[in-house]
Amino acid sequence: MKNYKIIIQYEGTRFQGWQRQTSTDNTIQGKIEAILSKMCGEPIEINGAGRTDAGVHAKGQVANFKIDTEKSTKEIMDYLNMYLPEDIAVVAIEEVDERFHARLNARGKHYQYRLRTIGIPDVFSRRYVHVQEDVLDVEAMRKAAKLLSGKHDFKAFTSNHRTKKNTERTISIEIKETPEELIFDYTGDGFLYHMVRILTGTLIEVGTGKWAPESMKEILASKERSNAGTLVPAKGLTLIEVFYK
Amino acid sequence: MKNYKIIIQYEGTRFQGWQRQTSTDNTIQGKIEAILSKMCGEPIEINGAGRTDAGVHAKGQVANFKIDTEKSTKEIMDYLNMYLPEDIAVVAIEEVDERFHARLNARGKHYQYRLRTIGIPDVFSRRYVHVQEDVLDVEAMRKAAKLLSGKHDFKAFTSNHRTKKNTERTISIEIKETPEELIFDYTGDGFLYHMVRILTGTLIEVGTGKWAPESMKEILASKERSNAGTLVPAKGLTLIEVFYK
Repeated sequence: MKNYKIIIQYEGTRFQGWQRQTSTDNTIQGKIEAILSKMCGEPIEINGAGRTDAGVHAKGQVANFKIDTEKSTKEIMDYLNMYLPEDIAVVAIEEVDERFHARLNARGKHYQYRLRTIGIPDVFSRRYVHVQEDVLDVEAMRKAAKLLSGKHDFKAFTSNHRTKKNTERTISIEIKETPEELIFDYTGDGFLYHMVRILTGTLIEVGTGKWAPESMKEILASKERSNAGTLVPAKGLTLIEVFYK
Repeated sequence: MKNYKIIIQYEGTRFQGWQRQTSTDNTIQGKIEAILSKMCGEPIEINGAGRTDAGVHAKGQVANFKIDTEKSTKEIMDYLNMYLPEDIAVVAIEEVDERFHARLNARGKHYQYRLRTIGIPDVFSRRYVHVQEDVLDVEAMRKAAKLLSGKHDFKAFTSNHRTKKNTERTISIEIKETPEELIFDYTGDGFLYHMVRILTGTLIEVGTGKWAPESMKEILASKERSNAGTLVPAKGLTLIEVFYK
């Protein structure tokens, strides 16, 4: 058995997210497993680094799988790309140590959220940006982003209310401004369920004046989801990269 | 009656091209005219600067139309964008002199052709690039592009064999190289039917060694379509800008 690490791109628009739910579902994991299983003649499971939600995109999702094959890495990649739909692509492959696990060994991730802030539509980015035409106080948003950066308990920023797992994470948030968009870059050792989208929604509400930047401290301390901002739509979110040691 | 100039973006993938053919067709011109006609309560025709083919995209197509309306330019643009499908957008509008005509007054155009030269797919550009995995001699292609640049009779480079119109054009071709793509920029005072796609096909064939760069002179002089290269697919082509005085 050899262990392979692959890097995967996808446009999440028409999928039910990364994680396989049934054997006939429309998930990215399911699509890849079906092709590998066909190639190997037996059921193959893959481990994805991050379980992206329905509608979320990826430029650098990582997964690993163990198979017994005579094929070269290039042949495996070409086989996958031949049978994958055109909105999923394997862009890199390598054989790795048998102990490598894409999720358990991940040291961090980089997510990006794109917000289009002007009312004029853009045909070419329409699937990858969330449009909200608002005059936003970007300096206030940057102050809030700074207060949210660092090591905190992010329990207030996850939709998974009942989790008993550790909700402490160390992250850093940067906000870039272009004439048409605000681009939120989130880098961290891990992200809770819906965390990036709730953080973005909260930061936008700082931009509209609903919250003062300083109130981020209280929201964090409250550990109450209802104190944080709106969950913004999945389409603006892209998993850019997964980091390993 | 006021005369309006609009700038239009579209992803050409699912359209039959710019030019209206019947009253119920799936063309960009047809879509825009239907909405303006609805808005004005009478049939409105628009003049497009370039008649892009089925599958060709645009970032800066220009059109003009004359209507009688109380609406502000912003209201007209918002009305159009509200009813246009999401793969067409009006990104600018202004009231212009009554003599302005988007096609007749155009002084030049900039088209771009994107060729992906590596075998690894890219999900995010897949609708806008033509993929041809070949080792290309880019220096030879640049020499040929230089010989094709300037003022020439481009009769050999159009699919419209029977034209009796003037087929002389002045153009300039630049080829940019990225790790994944060759990007062909065509700027000129005008382009014949299929001219950019035949020029690109011919330049690719110079890259593969089928033609020497010097043979461009003979192809031009022959004025015979059969001497030039292949017509490359429409999806790689985008109308970037239309120039006016």
